[in-house]
Amino acid sequence: MDHAVPTPYAPATHRALTFHDATEKFTSGTDTPRAYLERCLATIEAREPVVQGFVSLNIAGARDAADASTARWKSGMPRGRIDGMPIGIKDLIETRDMPTKMGSALYADNFPRRDSAMIQALREAGAVVLGKTVTTELGMSHPGPTTNPFDPTRTPGGSSQGSAAVVGANMVPAAIGTQVLGSIIRPAAFCANAALKPTQGAINRGERQGLSQSTAGVHAGCLEDMWAVAAEISLRAGGDPGAPGLYGDLAPPAPMQPRRLAVMEGEGFSQVHPAARDGFERALSGLEATGTTIIRKTDSAPLAAFERAIADSMALTRDVCAYEMRWTVENLVAQHGPEKISPSLAARLEVGRALSQAAYRARLAQRAAARAAHAALAPICDALVSLSCLGPAPKLGDTGGSDGRIIHTTGNPVMNAATSVLGCPVVTVPVLAVEGLPVGIQLIGQWHDDERVTAMARWIMQTA
Amino acid sequence: MDHAVPTPYAPATHRALTFHDATEKFTSGTDTPRAYLERCLATIEAREPVVQGFVSLNIAGARDAADASTARWKSGMPRGRIDGMPIGIKDLIETRDMPTKMGSALYADNFPRRDSAMIQALREAGAVVLGKTVTTELGMSHPGPTTNPFDPTRTPGGSSQGSAAVVGANMVPAAIGTQVLGSIIRPAAFCANAALKPTQGAINRGERQGLSQSTAGVHAGCLEDMWAVAAEISLRAGGDPGAPGLYGDLAPPAPMQPRRLAVMEGEGFSQVHPAARDGFERALSGLEATGTTIIRKTDSAPLAAFERAIADSMALTRDVCAYEMRWTVENLVAQHGPEKISPSLAARLEVGRALSQAAYRARLAQRAAARAAHAALAPICDALVSLSCLGPAPKLGDTGGSDGRIIHTTGNPVMNAATSVLGCPVVTVPVLAVEGLPVGIQLIGQWHDDERVTAMARWIMQTA
Repeated sequence: MDHAVPTPYAPATHRALTFHDATEKFTSGTDTPRAYLERCLATIEAREPVVQGFVSLNIAGARDAADASTARWKSGMPRGRIDGMPIGIKDLIETRDMPTKMGSALYADNFPRRDSAMIQALREAGAVVLGKTVTTELGMSHPGPTTNPFDPTRTPGGSSQGSAAVVGANMVPAAIGTQVLGSIIRPAAFCANAALKPTQGAINRGERQGLSQSTAGVHAGCLEDMWAVAAEISLRAGGDPGAPGLYGDLAPPAPMQPRRLAVMEGEGFSQVHPAARDGFERALSGLEATGTTIIRKTDSAPLAAFERAIADSMALTRDVCAYEMRWTVENLVAQHGPEKISPSLAARLEVGRALSQAAYRARLAQRAAARAAHAALAPICDALVSLSCLGPAPKLGDTGGSDGRIIHTTGNPVMNAATSVLGCPVVTVPVLAVEGLPVGIQLIGQWHDDERVTAMARWIMQTA
Repeated sequence: MDHAVPTPYAPATHRALTFHDATEKFTSGTDTPRAYLERCLATIEAREPVVQGFVSLNIAGARDAADASTARWKSGMPRGRIDGMPIGIKDLIETRDMPTKMGSALYADNFPRRDSAMIQALREAGAVVLGKTVTTELGMSHPGPTTNPFDPTRTPGGSSQGSAAVVGANMVPAAIGTQVLGSIIRPAAFCANAALKPTQGAINRGERQGLSQSTAGVHAGCLEDMWAVAAEISLRAGGDPGAPGLYGDLAPPAPMQPRRLAVMEGEGFSQVHPAARDGFERALSGLEATGTTIIRKTDSAPLAAFERAIADSMALTRDVCAYEMRWTVENLVAQHGPEKISPSLAARLEVGRALSQAAYRARLAQRAAARAAHAALAPICDALVSLSCLGPAPKLGDTGGSDGRIIHTTGNPVMNAATSVLGCPVVTVPVLAVEGLPVGIQLIGQWHDDERVTAMARWIMQTA
C-alpha cells in the first residue's frame, strides 16, 4: 500500500480503504482480520506522525480482537458484516480499555472503564476497537492537533476531526463521529469520507444525552461500510432512550436513482467557493442527464418557505447548545477555574448564562417550525441535495466562519447547521475535488429515511 | 415541635412542615432560615435513627447556606420563594459536596464533585441543600433501609423512599425525587407528602437522561412549597435538553375547582384496599357536592378506550426500562461481576437482553397509542383522578406487586405505571387515611398542564 499523501486528490482515482470487499477473502482464507489490522497499523505508523488523528491506541487489545475474529471467520461463524473491522472512536465516547479525554486537559485523567452503548454493540458485532480519535474541546470549537490527510497545512474539519482524518488517511475503514452543528459531515467532506449523520437518536449515544441536537454517526471509506457499521450498532444497542433506532436492513441498500432532488442552499450558499459551486452544478447536470429532476427554490413555494425556515440555523444551534450545556460548563469552571476552559468555550458559557428559559423556548419553537417546513417537502422530492462544505478545507488556524468570540478554526459549519437543526438523516459522498482537495455533496432525507438516503447516495457515487 | 411518630395518621389534624408561611417572619426578623434549619436538624436528630431517610448530610454546608440566606432576607434581597429552604436530594442525583451512592454498593465511592443541573438551580435560588436521601438500588426495586415515618414496621415506598420519608417525618419541607414507574407518587402517598411528577422533561434531569420515562419531581409538605421548588428549578435550569421546561408562574397557583374529572382506574383498580376505595368514593362524592362532575368509564367511550390503552402499562414500563438500561447494567456486571447486583436487577438485565429492537419499537408504538388515547380526553375533562396507591404502605419485606423475579418490597406501583407511560403531570395530595396510615389521591393532567393540575389539587386539599 502506498502511504504517501495522495495529492492532488481526485475522486475518480482515489482509493479509500474498504472492508466489505475483504470479507470474502476471510472466508476463503486468503486474508484474515488480523492481517487486515496489521495493514492498518502499518498505515498508522507511516502517516500518524503527520496526521495526528489518534489520542489513544489499544494495539494489543485490537490484535486480540482481530485474532478472535480471524477464528470466527475461519470456522464460518462470523458475527456479521463488520466482524473484524478495525474502527476508531471519537474521544468523547467512553471505552472500557482507553481513557476518554474529550479534547480537554480537564479530562486528561478521565478513564471511566466502561463501554458506551454503541461500543458494546461494536464489540458484540465483532468489530476491532482500535483507538480513540481526536475531538475538539468537548466536541465544540477549540481544535486538537489533527491535520488534513490530503494536505497537512490544512484542517481536517471538526469536531470529529480525528475520525475524519484517520478514515481519510486509510488508517481504518471506519470511525465513529458525533455532530451537533457540523461535526460529522463537514470533516468527512474535507477528508474524502463517506459519512452518515443519522436521524436524531437513531444510534444510541449512551452516556452522551446532554444536547438535544447531538447525533452519533459513522465515517467510512465507502457507503457499504458506513451503512454496515450504523446498522450493526442500532441492531444491538438501539437508538437513544425513547427513539426507535435506525430503520433498514443490515445489508447496505442497493443504489437507487432519485426521481426528484431539491437543492438546499441554506444560509451559507452565497459563501461557497466558486469552483465548488461549479462542481456541484456539474454533478446536478449529470444527475439530470440520467433522468433525475432537480428542483430549485425559485420553482417551488414550499422549498422557498423551507429556506426561510432554516435561514437562522447557525444562531439557533449556538443558543440551543449554549443553554443545554451551561450546567456542565459551570461545573468545570467551579471545579477548575475559568482560566482552564478555552476562550471559545467561555464565550459559549456567557451565551448560555444570558439566555432565559423563554428565549430557549422560542428557539425550540423555531426549530419545530423548521422541521415542519422540512416535512412539507416530503411529497415533492425524494431528498434534498447540497454541498457538504463551502469548499476545500481551510488552512490550519484560519478563523473563517467564527461566530463572535466563538472561534471556528476547523472550517465553517454553515452548510451543516440546518440539517442539525432538522434532526434529519444526512449522507455525504466524496465526489468533488477543488484545488486538489476533497469536497463532499450531501443528500438529506426526512426523519427515518436513512436507508433511502444511503441508497440514493450510492447512486450518486456510481454516476458521479 | 413534637417529634413523636404521629399515629394514627389523620389528614385533618396532621401538621406537615411547611416553608412558604415562614418567609414572612424572615422578612420581619422574628424567624431566620438558620433557625428554620436548626429546627429541621433537631427533628432529624430525633427521628432519623428510626426513619433512616438520609444517606449523607452536609450540616456545615447547610448552616453556611442558611446563614447566607438569613443575610439576604435581612437585607430585603431574597432570591425568591425558596431562599433558605432546607431540601433533601435523592441520592441518584449528583451534588458537588456529597457522594452519589445510588443505593448500590458499586457506587459507594462515587463522588463526582459536580452539581447536577437542578442542584445548581436550587443553590442559585438560595435553597439549602441539606442531604442526600435514600434510593432503592439504582432507582429500581431493591430497597434501602428507610422506614415509613408513620409506622416503622412499614415501607415508605420506593424508589424515592428517603425523599418521601424525610418530608413525611417533617425533617425537611421538601425533597427531590425521580420516577420512572411509580417512584415519586407512590412513596409520597404512603408518607403523606404532596408531590409533583411533572410533565416528562419539565425539570432538567442533568446527567440522568438514560431512561425515556424517568422524571425528576418534588416531594413537599404542602402544595405551595412543592410548586415553588419545581418552578424555581425550571426557571434556572430549564427542562431536559430539547424540552421547554415547566410552564407556569413562580407563584403557586390559586385553588381552582375542576368542572369535570374523569376517574382513571388503570390495571390495578381491582386490587385497591376496600377502605381506600371507600375513601376515594367519599372524596369524589364531596367533589360532586361542590359542583364537579365525575365521569366514569361506563359513561364515556373515549375514557373506556383510554383504559384499554393503558391496561398493559406495568409490562410496558418493565420492557422499556430494561431495554434502555441494559448497557449500563452490562457495564456494572463486566466491571464488578454478576454477583454484585441484586437478583431483581439481574432479572431486569435478562429482560433487557431478551428484548429485540423490534420488540422495543412495538413498546414505543404502544406508548404512543396510550398517549394519543390520553390526549383524546382533553376536551372532555379537566383532569383524571385516581388513587395514588392501592392502600396504606405495606409491611417491610412484603413482596406484593412483584413482577416475576423483579421483587417489589416498597409497595405495588400499579396505580402509577400508566401516568409514567403517559409522561403527563401528576400531583398527589394526602387527603385519605386507611388503618391510620396515609393514602393519597392523584390528579392527572395533559402534558404541560402541571400548573392547572396543581391548582385543582389545591382545591381538593381545601375541600377534602
